[in-house]
Amino acid sequence: MLNIRTDLALESTELYRETAKKEADGIEIETDEGESYTVTRIKIMDEIGSEQLGKPRGTYITIEVPGLKNTDQDLKDEISQLVAKEIKGLGKNHEETKTLIVGLGNWNITPDALGPKVVDRVLVTRQFFLAYKKDRDETVANVSAISPGVMGLTGIETGEIIKGIVEKTGPDLIIAIDALASRRMDRVSTTIQISDTGISPGSGVGNKRIGLTEDYLGVPVIAIGVPTVVDAATMVNDTMELIISSMKEQAQVGTDFYSMLERVAEEEKYQLIKEVLEPYMPNVLVTPKEIDILIDDLSIIIANGLNMALHPGIELKDVNRYIR
Amino acid sequence: MLNIRTDLALESTELYRETAKKEADGIEIETDEGESYTVTRIKIMDEIGSEQLGKPRGTYITIEVPGLKNTDQDLKDEISQLVAKEIKGLGKNHEETKTLIVGLGNWNITPDALGPKVVDRVLVTRQFFLAYKKDRDETVANVSAISPGVMGLTGIETGEIIKGIVEKTGPDLIIAIDALASRRMDRVSTTIQISDTGISPGSGVGNKRIGLTEDYLGVPVIAIGVPTVVDAATMVNDTMELIISSMKEQAQVGTDFYSMLERVAEEEKYQLIKEVLEPYMPNVLVTPKEIDILIDDLSIIIANGLNMALHPGIELKDVNRYIR
Amino acid sequence: MLNIRTDLALESTELYRETAKKEADGIEIETDEGESYTVTRIKIMDEIGSEQLGKPRGTYITIEVPGLKNTDQDLKDEISQLVAKEIKGLGKNHEETKTLIVGLGNWNITPDALGPKVVDRVLVTRQFFLAYKKDRDETVANVSAISPGVMGLTGIETGEIIKGIVEKTGPDLIIAIDALASRRMDRVSTTIQISDTGISPGSGVGNKRIGLTEDYLGVPVIAIGVPTVVDAATMVNDTMELIISSMKEQAQVGTDFYSMLERVAEEEKYQLIKEVLEPYMPNVLVTPKEIDILIDDLSIIIANGLNMALHPGIELKDVNRYIR
Amino acid sequence: MLNIRTDLALESTELYRETAKKEADGIEIETDEGESYTVTRIKIMDEIGSEQLGKPRGTYITIEVPGLKNTDQDLKDEISQLVAKEIKGLGKNHEETKTLIVGLGNWNITPDALGPKVVDRVLVTRQFFLAYKKDRDETVANVSAISPGVMGLTGIETGEIIKGIVEKTGPDLIIAIDALASRRMDRVSTTIQISDTGISPGSGVGNKRIGLTEDYLGVPVIAIGVPTVVDAATMVNDTMELIISSMKEQAQVGTDFYSMLERVAEEEKYQLIKEVLEPYMPNVLVTPKEIDILIDDLSIIIANGLNMALHPGIELKDVNRYIR
Repeated sequence: MLNIRTDLALESTELYRETAKKEADGIEIETDEGESYTVTRIKIMDEIGSEQLGKPRGTYITIEVPGLKNTDQDLKDEISQLVAKEIKGLGKNHEETKTLIVGLGNWNITPDALGPKVVDRVLVTRQFFLAYKKDRDETVANVSAISPGVMGLTGIETGEIIKGIVEKTGPDLIIAIDALASRRMDRVSTTIQISDTGISPGSGVGNKRIGLTEDYLGVPVIAIGVPTVVDAATMVNDTMELIISSMKEQAQVGTDFYSMLERVAEEEKYQLIKEVLEPYMPNVLVTPKEIDILIDDLSIIIANGLNMALHPGIELKDVNRYIR
Repeated sequence: MLNIRTDLALESTELYRETAKKEADGIEIETDEGESYTVTRIKIMDEIGSEQLGKPRGTYITIEVPGLKNTDQDLKDEISQLVAKEIKGLGKNHEETKTLIVGLGNWNITPDALGPKVVDRVLVTRQFFLAYKKDRDETVANVSAISPGVMGLTGIETGEIIKGIVEKTGPDLIIAIDALASRRMDRVSTTIQISDTGISPGSGVGNKRIGLTEDYLGVPVIAIGVPTVVDAATMVNDTMELIISSMKEQAQVGTDFYSMLERVAEEEKYQLIKEVLEPYMPNVLVTPKEIDILIDDLSIIIANGLNMALHPGIELKDVNRYIR
Repeated sequence: MLNIRTDLALESTELYRETAKKEADGIEIETDEGESYTVTRIKIMDEIGSEQLGKPRGTYITIEVPGLKNTDQDLKDEISQLVAKEIKGLGKNHEETKTLIVGLGNWNITPDALGPKVVDRVLVTRQFFLAYKKDRDETVANVSAISPGVMGLTGIETGEIIKGIVEKTGPDLIIAIDALASRRMDRVSTTIQISDTGISPGSGVGNKRIGLTEDYLGVPVIAIGVPTVVDAATMVNDTMELIISSMKEQAQVGTDFYSMLERVAEEEKYQLIKEVLEPYMPNVLVTPKEIDILIDDLSIIIANGLNMALHPGIELKDVNRYIR
Repeated sequence: MLNIRTDLALESTELYRETAKKEADGIEIETDEGESYTVTRIKIMDEIGSEQLGKPRGTYITIEVPGLKNTDQDLKDEISQLVAKEIKGLGKNHEETKTLIVGLGNWNITPDALGPKVVDRVLVTRQFFLAYKKDRDETVANVSAISPGVMGLTGIETGEIIKGIVEKTGPDLIIAIDALASRRMDRVSTTIQISDTGISPGSGVGNKRIGLTEDYLGVPVIAIGVPTVVDAATMVNDTMELIISSMKEQAQVGTDFYSMLERVAEEEKYQLIKEVLEPYMPNVLVTPKEIDILIDDLSIIIANGLNMALHPGIELKDVNRYIR
């Protein structure tokens, strides 16, 4: 099993491939190429695949949209629709599903604020179902939403807060949104991962001790994540490799050091850098300069996608009416 | 029983006195005059007092500090200490008490954001008790804190969220902070009410349907409230009275209209104004221009007061170290 | 001349009509009724009109859109286009005009933050003209933008800051956006006034001592204003009248007081209320509960309108791409 | 002259020393060690020193306070007083000086928002001198303050805006606050640089094209800067060196590569990393996770320091009264 932490199943398969020089077992990968995006669907079928990739069994959909960094309204709308389609494709919700949307992360740390920003913007309707004592509606689904904060702010495990709310309000489906760490800067704020496996302990930009999973909460959990930071150790590691390969091209590379580095397994090298780096710069974020704007854009895309996926009467043409 | 809504027990006694021309029964009132503040302790002893004042039985402490509007650090520190003393005086907490602080209100509406701002600033420690598996500490008490939002944002009753958290985390005491409506502009942001009765349904700037009370939650609830708005109908009512009495002084007042108004009970007049005003301007806030700054100041005063009241090792000299 | 302050020329004409029982002289009024809006164009032709209405000579366009309070994207787009059309109709700018957009008001006071929010959202391009040393472009006009703050924040007259910038950067046109006070709650955040007269001293929610006028700045100044508050005295005045007329209908009204009030001129009554009210509640804002959201929506509508009015290559279909 | 950009004169002397293996010429360095801080005063005396260090002639005071990251009120107060003392020590202001405080940087990018946050918090008084037509006051000095934004937000050079204001308001002294980049993560948000040389073009987190200097503005300019980010290339460079020296200790280092790297001058190595890194991750910020809180703390320390330095009647005991 890999020890390098990545929140993206796509990167887990890449890392496994680099290290083992073969594809992981017990997985299925399927790719759709759009003009402006690539969708990769990774299905971890059994325990072997789960162990090799360090991720729970289930389906992981990764939407990569390189153009999201300098985007326009048409692309945003296209990706919102794609997000809606992929959420619906997971088959966890229908018209009468009561959904609880959970915005994970710390609203005081910009790159960790994606989840709370989506929750701010999503259409919330459960109060009307209560007020009018209705069970279903033709155009609107029953949706509630909360940003539980992080343990450093509340002193309470996120999982405990959500479990308490689930027991009191009885939703049929949870959709949790979280900011992730990627191994590659070019994936930051251009990639959306949707999975039906919930949120594992320890994932995301902040660390969770209890996961948000169907096992723990008793209802299916769809997780939507967007990388908003890269790990500093990863950045150094990758830059060193670029430098070494650039030196190699220039035939200047020292044979011993280089060959030694070559011999060191990817993972050990990463651990070495991590050990050196951490006392020197703990709690460092590596993030794009324009992260505030990128997070704003992404939260609108995801909130629009959720509104279209959940509410039968909301289509693209009206979706911007429901956004704040 | 009075129909005029006021969140301050102090104003309920004033209204009862004006209407019934006598003090309410079954209550005890005690006043402390400081140089810069007045503390009024109203104890509603029985059901008669409760019915006459339209408030649950219990103790209501009102701290009035006219100088808070243009305050300096010394006065803020003095009031923080007073808040700490009065909270401790209610006798609901000791060193081993596990306290959950609840910040009620909508963070998107400035005058309703007091509770969430206090929660942002209070020292939260429960995570350390969990991490170090400790039950008690000599300097720090076990404190958690949450701002549950309002039903319009989450689709969930505040009461349900808090009850779920209480069941999961087992606090011994809840302290709920809320923005209130006053009948008098000069009380806005200069008055702090502390009571041991919890929060009743329908009180505060936003409307709650379920109260936060010991009955519902199973643990004692201390409520801290600060008026941040006045009711528009109250403002019109009070201004009309000022005008009439100013006209009367000028001996210009028309006898019939004036005497008619005199005859109309306070409450009916208020209802009349309310009926006229509401279709014309629903959802109006009447609030001081500098409300953003006042709410900031008050949230620091209350958070400092809570930190000193709850943590045995925190005194005035270090309290500003724990404030954000 | 009227002493009741109103920032809307439309209300000045109403007040004059109520008081003088006739239309003001030296003015032309023209009305366009759309399905969802009314446009009133008031032209103050000469000094007589200017004196009677208490407003400088020039054209005042008022767009009233009652539906803006619970709006959808289509109506917002329609009004953005209308704003663009009316700005262009004033004939002050063409493709090569260099425009400076000025966002007046205090960003720390929600109802006064409209101008700064529009400036945050408007497309700014002057830096590209400088960088590429261009004088004109086929799709984009030369636009700069600043929010100068208010004197309480900077210690500097807004007029001085803007005059300094005008001298350094040489714009051909200034467009100033400001939050206004209305006499009627139903106009708050549903009305947009566009005029070619600049901003007079003393207008707006905050008070300016120096106006932003062509006289002072040497370039034409278009002013865009939206009422975001009502004056507390106006609110009391209007409610009292509603109460009196409701009492009259019920044939309960006291003849003397009522007839006395009838005899008192509108303006004196307002002054009386103002005198009574001010010591009792200075610096009070009367504003809708949802003012934060309304200001957000309006700043997008106006920024979109400006982007379409100024840049030849921006049409409705792409306007949301340029908004933040 | 060095090509490695650093905003701290202290780091320029370190870099010169590392590269030239000697101290730069034409400079004087003086160090004060406090219990919790180190003050280094670097005086660049002539053109030789200026060329060797890549910085204009003048005095650069660097206050290093490692404890600022987990600070308490006492340390903050101590550093505020130190900042006040060092500003006064530069000898540019006396009781009748009219000071304009300029908060540089983009308020939308957290690590660049230091300047605007200081301006928000500083005591501004010029409006009272104007209102009461006074020239001097025994307790309060004449202070104005502005945050001009950045060119990407306004389309206007910061220098032009400030020059316009200087011409209109005639200050005797400008104090400009800016966020800086450091070469070392441990300096981020623990170091304050105060200089009497103004702000050079190209310095700071955002890039300025026109500097804010006495030459350009006609009045002395004191610059106060705090590093809030590190350069990504610097981070990689430094980590690589740590790794190599850690490998060397373990006697595992490959001789050729290592000795090659040893031979490469510091500066060339940095350029190499920069070349490799930039296409791969342009516009990356490397910043501490808790940057929002650190910037808040630092802005209060600097604003308090400015208030004590400028106003004769403000001492430590009252300084927190003037902070927002």
